[in-house]
Amino acid sequence: MPQGESMSTLQPEQVQHAIEAWATAIGSDKVAHDTATIEEYSRTTQASAPRPSCILYPDSTEEVQALTRVAQEYGVPLYPISCGKNWGYGDACPSSDGAAVVDLGRMNKILEVNTDLAYCVIQPGVKQQELYDYLQDNDTGLWVDAFAAGPDASMVGNTADRGFGHTRYGDHVRSCCGMEVVLADGRILKTGFGHYGNSKAEHVYPYGVGPYLDGMFTQSNYGIITRIGLWLLPEPEHFSFFYFQLPKFEDLGEVVERLRPLRLDGTLQTAIHIGNDLRVMASIGHYPWDRTEETPIPGEIRQQLRKETSAQSWQGSGSLTGTKAQVRASQKALRKALRGLCSPKFVDDRKLNLMEAVAPTIMKITSSDMLGKRLGILRQNYDLLKGIPTAEPLRGAQWRVRTKPENLEDLRGDGVGLYWVAPTMPMMGEDALKIQGVIEPIFNAHGFDMIVSFILLTERSLVAIFNIAFDRTIPEEREAASKCYEASIEALAENGYYSYRAGLQGMNKIRSNGSTFWDVASDIKRALDPNDIISPGRYIAPLDKK
Amino acid sequence: MPQGESMSTLQPEQVQHAIEAWATAIGSDKVAHDTATIEEYSRTTQASAPRPSCILYPDSTEEVQALTRVAQEYGVPLYPISCGKNWGYGDACPSSDGAAVVDLGRMNKILEVNTDLAYCVIQPGVKQQELYDYLQDNDTGLWVDAFAAGPDASMVGNTADRGFGHTRYGDHVRSCCGMEVVLADGRILKTGFGHYGNSKAEHVYPYGVGPYLDGMFTQSNYGIITRIGLWLLPEPEHFSFFYFQLPKFEDLGEVVERLRPLRLDGTLQTAIHIGNDLRVMASIGHYPWDRTEETPIPGEIRQQLRKETSAQSWQGSGSLTGTKAQVRASQKALRKALRGLCSPKFVDDRKLNLMEAVAPTIMKITSSDMLGKRLGILRQNYDLLKGIPTAEPLRGAQWRVRTKPENLEDLRGDGVGLYWVAPTMPMMGEDALKIQGVIEPIFNAHGFDMIVSFILLTERSLVAIFNIAFDRTIPEEREAASKCYEASIEALAENGYYSYRAGLQGMNKIRSNGSTFWDVASDIKRALDPNDIISPGRYIAPLDKK
Repeated sequence: MPQGESMSTLQPEQVQHAIEAWATAIGSDKVAHDTATIEEYSRTTQASAPRPSCILYPDSTEEVQALTRVAQEYGVPLYPISCGKNWGYGDACPSSDGAAVVDLGRMNKILEVNTDLAYCVIQPGVKQQELYDYLQDNDTGLWVDAFAAGPDASMVGNTADRGFGHTRYGDHVRSCCGMEVVLADGRILKTGFGHYGNSKAEHVYPYGVGPYLDGMFTQSNYGIITRIGLWLLPEPEHFSFFYFQLPKFEDLGEVVERLRPLRLDGTLQTAIHIGNDLRVMASIGHYPWDRTEETPIPGEIRQQLRKETSAQSWQGSGSLTGTKAQVRASQKALRKALRGLCSPKFVDDRKLNLMEAVAPTIMKITSSDMLGKRLGILRQNYDLLKGIPTAEPLRGAQWRVRTKPENLEDLRGDGVGLYWVAPTMPMMGEDALKIQGVIEPIFNAHGFDMIVSFILLTERSLVAIFNIAFDRTIPEEREAASKCYEASIEALAENGYYSYRAGLQGMNKIRSNGSTFWDVASDIKRALDPNDIISPGRYIAPLDKK
Repeated sequence: MPQGESMSTLQPEQVQHAIEAWATAIGSDKVAHDTATIEEYSRTTQASAPRPSCILYPDSTEEVQALTRVAQEYGVPLYPISCGKNWGYGDACPSSDGAAVVDLGRMNKILEVNTDLAYCVIQPGVKQQELYDYLQDNDTGLWVDAFAAGPDASMVGNTADRGFGHTRYGDHVRSCCGMEVVLADGRILKTGFGHYGNSKAEHVYPYGVGPYLDGMFTQSNYGIITRIGLWLLPEPEHFSFFYFQLPKFEDLGEVVERLRPLRLDGTLQTAIHIGNDLRVMASIGHYPWDRTEETPIPGEIRQQLRKETSAQSWQGSGSLTGTKAQVRASQKALRKALRGLCSPKFVDDRKLNLMEAVAPTIMKITSSDMLGKRLGILRQNYDLLKGIPTAEPLRGAQWRVRTKPENLEDLRGDGVGLYWVAPTMPMMGEDALKIQGVIEPIFNAHGFDMIVSFILLTERSLVAIFNIAFDRTIPEEREAASKCYEASIEALAENGYYSYRAGLQGMNKIRSNGSTFWDVASDIKRALDPNDIISPGRYIAPLDKK
């Protein structure tokens, strides 16, 4: 039994035996290892990625348990994915060559929706669009906390990797209540009160009694999450979207200072998104290859595009919810906070519908479709903040590809290359300005435009989402993107800023400080998965096998 | 070296050697094992409790590290306490006989207060009153999330045991950001981004990158917390306390149904407290031993006391905060939700001061001090919801003692006996009514009054806080209290209800289902503390040492 060998020495027969045993365990129709399927799962937005040896498609928790037993016996690792839409962070690719990707896409049941208590219980294969549709079709009056990875992305996957959404429940970790996890040895762990078989509070109170373990299973490889309870947001009586623009680069610092007190006092309860001019251009269009071959974008062309898209240095957006009276009171507080800097515009359903109704006439008069495009962006942001999944935010990833693709549902293909750099910082104007000062010269030196959004993520933290958008079909650009990524992460770390999330290509970097934290993370891994059969190297260092 | 023996076989010389080594390590002035001190730390509100072999008073993280090394060498366990005010859950007593209590009371530094970002960094010895005073004295404009365990209780201790407070930040786990933990082998773990030495986001973003481990260190024995970041609430522009009364027992179910939507939609952002008539009587006074020797309290005396205290079946209270306009809007929503059931009364600073000013005159006219007592309760609740620590909520624990004590600061003494039964349930009227149906006959059969508060704790969960108040000086009552506690926990479990927290006397009970959850909790314990030197048996089962 070749168990205990390191991944790099997986033997072909070992893998072959494992594949046979998996087929026996869950049925050969749920095991794929043909070249086309392997190719499909090897596609990536990264410069490069490991290749799986096979794909396994369990459709129940019991089958996932069976998969772990075979993996233990033959020493071939498993790499679970939910819907495989981890764009820019590793897509559907495994963390090590030869691992078996466990595609949980067939485990896509919405097991329970409780409308009184506003929660659901879902499997990893449930896409955010599916959950949204279900809640709509059944008139539940409940909202999904939609996130920006596209309609086909998994609610469970996004939660497990600590993504964030754009409603009041943006912090998915805080909305997750009661997990079911299959451990490496096939045991089923239920967290919170769930392990008491008859508990009534399993999905309403997350901590249970005794250690609160859920957090361990986010951004880690300690188990395979097969089910979570997820809180849903009751549709508010009134929804008011707001947006504002800031002409000057330095205004970013000031607006963060103005908004922080409102985030802290609870007036602003959702993430506030503040994107730069390049973010607008990348959302609407495409790199101006028709005007220049230079990169990054030359100053005068950037100015032209600003004018054409009506972009300013910064554009902010967010939402207010509550009763009409509550929303009115919050609008007043927001206006007051921004006085002298900018005037937020408020949009509700009535107003947006009206704007969309008159737009065609205006476009005819002005002979320009820019108003339509800008309304399109407004609508997509508006909907996202109302919990309606949309693929539009993915469009920015296509900025640099030479041939403009149309398929937004699957980023892997058409040359789309994508790295995220997502440093987390205190919600202070000076940090926001500082971080740009660090990143802009690095991006530009590598030939990339600094596309960035600053997100007032929680009451005290700000995350900057930079994306390195590149064309994978051009080797030099692929190389430049990798180097730009590495240089950015290093420069940020030197200044005390670290990303809230890591992609496969960045897992080594986050551990480079070699702290006790990572040793403890490995101690826990060794206790729960001594043979390192689940996602070796994902967040936690590969175990040193002898 | 006697390491690896179970606690019951600790040898006197082993303990003696350990004490000498501890004295060498941190100084003999920081080690106490005289009879008076041992007696002091053995005092308890429980029927009985283990006795420590000595008390250690480290005053730095380095000294805590040194203590763990000696504990490892001699196999004598450590039992860390913060301020030792874990009333009704084990007080300052260790989880096993002969353990060395590590009293962290001298580690009472407020290491940092950041007023821009509204957080502090504190050591375990910081009492909630000390933090409150510091924030007031320095005009920080920040509130403490005060909790009901008295001014001398530790903020860190309450957070580590997942207590709750009465402001918008009532869920302490969610307000805790960035821990420093000394592990059993003396290593220092920093969670979140804290282990990156220069991280700027350590105390603003809790998760860091990689597994989120903080939850593991709550309600467990995996390490000794020596520091936490804790978010503080910015003083709101306006504060409105509200209260209401409900005449009928069954109204509890209805009011829960009416309030749940407001808890879910964010109108009500704090725990709502709904106490029964006995809760009022226990807060104001003392068991009517002058009128009866019977227990529980006879029906007609209960009726008399209801009248005298103006208590009804239920009294609810909570608070609304925000700008004046936001509070007005929320008051409107609350009034609307309760229409036809009861009329909430709103009290702000101006109104309460006025009531207190006119009360003496009214009391003179009516020749009764009851108004004063009721205003006293109102003031204590009002203050607690404004983040002002108070000892008054502890008064209910003295309900049954024969000689009424006056010292509220320390419950251990004067015969005060106290068990908490704190089942967590979905925020549904039917569950609230059901739980009382389960508990009331059990309490009454054992001679106890069902003193209870139902707390709308989170957006979806309700916790019932029953306290078994008994007189420790009476052996029969002590025994009845223990039996009543056991019977209550068992009956609740049969119905699917489990307490959110456990005392030393209840640790076995929570593990009686023998689930994978507890096995995993032990796996982690074995990985981090294989010799079980930190708080053996606290939440996690004692390791089976051979």
